[in-house]
Amino acid sequence: MAVVMKPGASEEDIERVVRFVREKYGLRTDVSRGEFQTVIGLIGDEDRVDFERLATLPGVERAYRITSPYRLVSRNFFPEDRVIEIKGVKIGGNNRPVFIAGPCAIESKEQIFRIAREVYEAGADILRGGAFKPRTSVHSFQGLGEEGLEYLAKAGEEYGMPTISEVRSEKHVELVAKYVDILQIGARNMYNQDLIEEAARQKKPILLKRSFGASIEEFLSFAERAVAQGNKDVILCERGILPIGRGRQFTRYSLDLSAVPVIKKETYLPIIVDPSHGTGRRDLIYPMSKAAIAAGAHGLMIEVHYNPDEALSDGPQMIHPRDLKKIIDVCKKIYEINSTEG
Amino acid sequence: MAVVMKPGASEEDIERVVRFVREKYGLRTDVSRGEFQTVIGLIGDEDRVDFERLATLPGVERAYRITSPYRLVSRNFFPEDRVIEIKGVKIGGNNRPVFIAGPCAIESKEQIFRIAREVYEAGADILRGGAFKPRTSVHSFQGLGEEGLEYLAKAGEEYGMPTISEVRSEKHVELVAKYVDILQIGARNMYNQDLIEEAARQKKPILLKRSFGASIEEFLSFAERAVAQGNKDVILCERGILPIGRGRQFTRYSLDLSAVPVIKKETYLPIIVDPSHGTGRRDLIYPMSKAAIAAGAHGLMIEVHYNPDEALSDGPQMIHPRDLKKIIDVCKKIYEINSTEG
Amino acid sequence: MAVVMKPGASEEDIERVVRFVREKYGLRTDVSRGEFQTVIGLIGDEDRVDFERLATLPGVERAYRITSPYRLVSRNFFPEDRVIEIKGVKIGGNNRPVFIAGPCAIESKEQIFRIAREVYEAGADILRGGAFKPRTSVHSFQGLGEEGLEYLAKAGEEYGMPTISEVRSEKHVELVAKYVDILQIGARNMYNQDLIEEAARQKKPILLKRSFGASIEEFLSFAERAVAQGNKDVILCERGILPIGRGRQFTRYSLDLSAVPVIKKETYLPIIVDPSHGTGRRDLIYPMSKAAIAAGAHGLMIEVHYNPDEALSDGPQMIHPRDLKKIIDVCKKIYEINSTEG
Amino acid sequence: MAVVMKPGASEEDIERVVRFVREKYGLRTDVSRGEFQTVIGLIGDEDRVDFERLATLPGVERAYRITSPYRLVSRNFFPEDRVIEIKGVKIGGNNRPVFIAGPCAIESKEQIFRIAREVYEAGADILRGGAFKPRTSVHSFQGLGEEGLEYLAKAGEEYGMPTISEVRSEKHVELVAKYVDILQIGARNMYNQDLIEEAARQKKPILLKRSFGASIEEFLSFAERAVAQGNKDVILCERGILPIGRGRQFTRYSLDLSAVPVIKKETYLPIIVDPSHGTGRRDLIYPMSKAAIAAGAHGLMIEVHYNPDEALSDGPQMIHPRDLKKIIDVCKKIYEINSTEG
Repeated sequence: MAVVMKPGASEEDIERVVRFVREKYGLRTDVSRGEFQTVIGLIGDEDRVDFERLATLPGVERAYRITSPYRLVSRNFFPEDRVIEIKGVKIGGNNRPVFIAGPCAIESKEQIFRIAREVYEAGADILRGGAFKPRTSVHSFQGLGEEGLEYLAKAGEEYGMPTISEVRSEKHVELVAKYVDILQIGARNMYNQDLIEEAARQKKPILLKRSFGASIEEFLSFAERAVAQGNKDVILCERGILPIGRGRQFTRYSLDLSAVPVIKKETYLPIIVDPSHGTGRRDLIYPMSKAAIAAGAHGLMIEVHYNPDEALSDGPQMIHPRDLKKIIDVCKKIYEINSTEG
Repeated sequence: MAVVMKPGASEEDIERVVRFVREKYGLRTDVSRGEFQTVIGLIGDEDRVDFERLATLPGVERAYRITSPYRLVSRNFFPEDRVIEIKGVKIGGNNRPVFIAGPCAIESKEQIFRIAREVYEAGADILRGGAFKPRTSVHSFQGLGEEGLEYLAKAGEEYGMPTISEVRSEKHVELVAKYVDILQIGARNMYNQDLIEEAARQKKPILLKRSFGASIEEFLSFAERAVAQGNKDVILCERGILPIGRGRQFTRYSLDLSAVPVIKKETYLPIIVDPSHGTGRRDLIYPMSKAAIAAGAHGLMIEVHYNPDEALSDGPQMIHPRDLKKIIDVCKKIYEINSTEG
Repeated sequence: MAVVMKPGASEEDIERVVRFVREKYGLRTDVSRGEFQTVIGLIGDEDRVDFERLATLPGVERAYRITSPYRLVSRNFFPEDRVIEIKGVKIGGNNRPVFIAGPCAIESKEQIFRIAREVYEAGADILRGGAFKPRTSVHSFQGLGEEGLEYLAKAGEEYGMPTISEVRSEKHVELVAKYVDILQIGARNMYNQDLIEEAARQKKPILLKRSFGASIEEFLSFAERAVAQGNKDVILCERGILPIGRGRQFTRYSLDLSAVPVIKKETYLPIIVDPSHGTGRRDLIYPMSKAAIAAGAHGLMIEVHYNPDEALSDGPQMIHPRDLKKIIDVCKKIYEINSTEG
Repeated sequence: MAVVMKPGASEEDIERVVRFVREKYGLRTDVSRGEFQTVIGLIGDEDRVDFERLATLPGVERAYRITSPYRLVSRNFFPEDRVIEIKGVKIGGNNRPVFIAGPCAIESKEQIFRIAREVYEAGADILRGGAFKPRTSVHSFQGLGEEGLEYLAKAGEEYGMPTISEVRSEKHVELVAKYVDILQIGARNMYNQDLIEEAARQKKPILLKRSFGASIEEFLSFAERAVAQGNKDVILCERGILPIGRGRQFTRYSLDLSAVPVIKKETYLPIIVDPSHGTGRRDLIYPMSKAAIAAGAHGLMIEVHYNPDEALSDGPQMIHPRDLKKIIDVCKKIYEINSTEG
C-alpha cells in the first residue's frame, strides 16, 4: 500500500502522513522521493488502514490499497481448487460440468415431478425450482412457499438429484435449508450481507449469484462473507451484467463470460453460468451454454419447462427438456475438447 | 400495449396472436395493417399480460408494455404532492427543503449528543445516525446496534428532532421502528422486497434509497412495493449511480441530479439527495448540495461529525457542523430563488 | 408506431395529435380508446416521424418508434447470409471461422515478415498490422504510417494472405485502401460517420468494430451508414463493452459474447470477435476464443508477436504464434461440433 | 509507481522485475518487503513505463501507474485558472457564467438572424448553430454546410456575439475555422485524436465535449491532446453520461454534475454544461441549468429556437428565447450567491 504525495507537497505534509500512519494504524513507512512526486510505502497489515481517509490529508494526491479486499476466497492464499460434493455430485476443479435444471417456479406437485423426470432423463445433475420468487411487480405470481419446497425435495429424492432453491428473505433461511441441498442467493441479494451470512451458517452449500451491477471484486468480497462464517462450500454464478448503450436492448443482461476464466484465476471456488436469466431469451440459451462451457465454466443452471409457453413465470427464457438434452450433450463434447487440449 | 409483427408475418401468425391474447389474457385487440408491418393493439388491463412471452410467438417482432410498471406512486393517477409530516417537520410539496444530518455511525452516547446539538444549532431538521451498518468488509466497524438506537432516540428528543436510521435486515425492522421516526432502506437493499414491505408495515415513514444500478423506473417500482402495503409516507433518495468509463474515478458514484426533476414529474412522493454517499468526497458536498437544491430536491441528507478524521466510518465524506451551517444557509437562499422565480 | 396518451388526456389533446401527424408527416392514424389510456397508432412511413417531438405535445405520455432504425442491414428485409470473399478467403454464412492475426503495430519489415510467416504456418487466414495507431497518450508509439502499409502488403503477398489495417483518420482512407484488402474502423471511431462513409466508398470490405459504449442497435445503425454507400461487404466485430461495478477491474473490457447470436439474428452481415482488445489479457485469449466460436462467431481477430514482451505496443494482450496455432486448432474442433450438432 | 508481487513470489521473480525496470526503462527501484507481499517502487519518469507489460512478468500481482495520464492540463502543475477571452467574452476563472445559445441546426439566413437577435436580447453571450450535424440516421437533415457557416458568422457580427459551431470531420476543420470563433468537438468525436489535433492547430479556442462513455480521466487525456498542440484555449463541456439500469429511461443521458467541481480541481481549464443534449427534454433544461451553475459551471450551452416544434432537428430539447431569458436571469442570481458565499 502506498500514499502518493502531490508534486508540490511540503516536507511537513510528508511527515504528517508518516506520523499519522504510525500513530493511527501502527504501521511503518518507507519514503521514496521521486523526481516529481514522493511516494510513501506502508508496511504492515493493510486491513487496519482507511485509505479514503488517508487521501484527505493535506498534500496527499492518492492513497492505494494494494492487496485485495478478499483473502479467504483468494487463490493466492489457498491455491487448490475447492470441489464441492453434494450427494455424489461434484462441482469444481477438473470435474465435468454440472447441469442444474428445473422450472423457474414450482407450480404444482405434478409439474415439478414431471420436470424432474424429464430433466433427469435429459442428463441433469441437480434439480432447481423456485418457491419464493423475487418480483419487481406486486401482482406477479410469488411462488408456492413451503408447499413448493416439499414437492421439490420429494421430486429430487424420487430421481436421485440434489436440489436447489432460492432463499430471498432471512426469515425463510431455516425453512429453505430444511428442504433443499443448496441455498441460492439471488443477484438482487448479492449485497445482502445478513442473508448471505445467515444462509452460510446453515452448513449447506451456497450458490451466490453476481449482481448485475457488481464488479468481480465486489462479487468475491461478498463470497468472502459466506466463507468467513466457516462455510467454504460456495458456488459462484455469473448471470449477466447491465447491457450498455442507448436504444433497444436485445437481451435482458449481457452475460459476462470473461468473468469465468478471471474468477478461476482469482479464487478456488467453482463458477457456473446461468444463461437463462443472463439472456432472457430462449433462443440464446443454446449458443451461450456452449460458450460458457468453452470458457471453462464448472456448470450451468438452466430453466426448463415441458410447456414453456404455459409456465407461470419467466416463460420467454424457459426451454423444453428435449432442448436441455441437446445442450447437455454438446456441452459434454466441448468439455472433452477442453480437457484434451488443456 | 401493442404487438408488432415482422414484415413477413403471415395472416396465420397474426391470427395466432389475436387468439392468444383473447384466450390467455381475456383482452380485445385492434389490428392495424401498415404498409410494411402489422401492429396489433391490445385493449384492457395490461397487468394481465406477459409481454416477453408474447414476443416469443411466431411472426412477432416486438411486444410493448405501454403503461408504466408502477401505478400507486404515479402522479398520473394521483396528481397532488404528498407532504409527509414528522413531529412538525414537513417534507415534500412546496415546503422549504429539509436537512437531515448526523454521523455515519453512532459511536457513543457522547458522540451522538454532541453531534445532535451541533447539527441542531447549524439548522438541521432531522437527526440521522447508523446503528446497523452495511459493510463490504467483514472486519469494518458494524455499528452499536440497539444501544446506538437508544442514544439516537434520546438525542433526537433532547433537541426536538425526529430521527432516522438504516434498517439493514428484516430481523431488525421492529427493533429499529421502536426507536426511530423514519426507517431508512439503503441503496444495497433497494431490490429487497421483503425488507421494504416489512418496513412499510411499521406504519412509519420510509426513506428509500435508489440503488446505484437501478433505473428510475425500477426505483419507483420498488417504492410501489411500500405503498402497496398501505403506507404512502415514502421519501425517495437519490445517492448516486455507477460512474462511467475506464481508469481512475474521482468520485465513488455519479450523483444523478436530473433524477430530481424527473421523479418530481413521475410521482407525488418527495425526493431528497444524499451528496455524502453520492460523491464520497468532503470537498464536493458543498457544491453538490447547492446543485441538488437548485434542481428542486425536497431535502438533503448529509453526514456530519465534529471530528471527521476521527470518525469510525466513512471519514472522507463527513463534514464538520460549521460546514453544515454554511450549506444550510446557502441552500435556503437558493430555495428562495427557486420559489420566487418558479 | 404509436402515441400513448396520458390517462387524463382530453379529446382535444387526442385530436391535436391526429391532426399533427396528418399535417406534418402525412400519415393516417388509428385511435384505440382503452379503459385507462388512449393509444393512437400511426400508419405509413415511420422514417418521416420525429418521435421525440411527438412526445412533447400536450396530453402525450410516450411516442413509440416501432421498426428499427436500420433497414439495409436487417435480416428482416434481406434474409440471406452475406458471405464476403477476399482473395479466396470466405467470411460469413456457414463457412468455417476465419482467423485474422498479426501484430498490434507494424514495427519493421523484418518483424511483419517474420510474423506473417509464423501466423501463416499457425493457420491464420488474414494478416493484420497497425500502421496508424489510435492512442490515448501523445507520447506513445504512433505507428510507421505508409512505410508500414507497404511492408504489410508485401508480407501478405509473400504468404498469400489478404491484409487488414486500421484507418483512423479520413485523410488516410485512400492511402490505406491503396495497400490493404480490408479497411478497419476502430471502436473509438464507430460513431464517426464521415470516416465510415469515406471508407465504404473505397469499394473494399470494411471491418467495423463496436464501440465499448454502444448498444447493438447503435452498432447496426452505423453499419447501415456503410451499406448506404452501396457497399455490403461489412464485417462486424465485437471487442468488449465497458466493465461494470466499482473497484479493481480484471479485464480492460467485458467481451459481450451474447452479441454474437443476437447480431446473427438481426443482420445477414458476418460477426467476428476480437478477444485481444476485448480482454487486454494474454491468458484470457485462449478461453475467450473458444467461447466466441462456440457462440457462433464467424471468425477471430488476434494480436500475435514472436516476442510479446518486446512488442512496441499492447504487449500484455499479444500472444506467441505457437499459442495461435493451439487456438486455431481447438476452434476448428469446436466449429466442427457446432456444424454437426446444429 | 509501484509493482506489487504476489504473496508467494520468489527472490528470482523480484530480481527479474528490478532488472527489467532498470534495463528496459532506465529507472531505479526501491524494494519494500512487507509481511505478506513485496512492493517494488519505481523512481524516475513514469511515462517511459508500460504498466500492463510489467503486470505480465512472473510473480507480479499488479503494476500501478501513480501520476495521472495528463500533465499539461493538470492543475497540479499549472495552478492558475485559464481565462479564455473571445471578442471580449471571458470564460473561466471567477468570471460570471457565459451563456452560449442558438439553434441546433442553422436552417436559413432568416432563422439564424432572428434567433441571434432573440438570444442576444435574452442575454446570451455567444451564438451557436450547427452547419454539419452528426446523425445516427442517414436520412435526417445533415445541415447547410458552408452556407450555414456564412449566415452564422454574419449573424454573430450583427449582434456582436462570438460564434461556435461543431466540426465533425477533419476535412471541414479549416472551413469551419474560417467562419467561427470557437471550434466545437462533439461527444462522439471525443476519442478522435486526429480531429482534436487538427482543430487545436487552428489557433482558435476549442470546445471539447465529454463522450457519454468516458471517465473524467479519459476526458482530460484527450483535452491534453489539444493542449499538446500548443493551444491552451480549451473549454470543456459536460453533456451527460449513459443512463443506468433496465427499462424505460426518462432522459437521453444522465447529466454528471459532480464532474463540474471535480474538473475544476483537476484542471485549470473552464468547464461548462450542456443541459439540452444532457437531458434531451425541454422541461428539464430550467432545473438542470440552475443546478449546473450552483455546482460551479463556468457557463451553459443551450439550444434555442423561436418555434421549437418546427425546428428541423432536436425539437424536443429546444427552448423558446423567453425561457432562455428566464434561465439566464435566475442563473445570474445563483452565481451571485456562489460568489458571495464562496
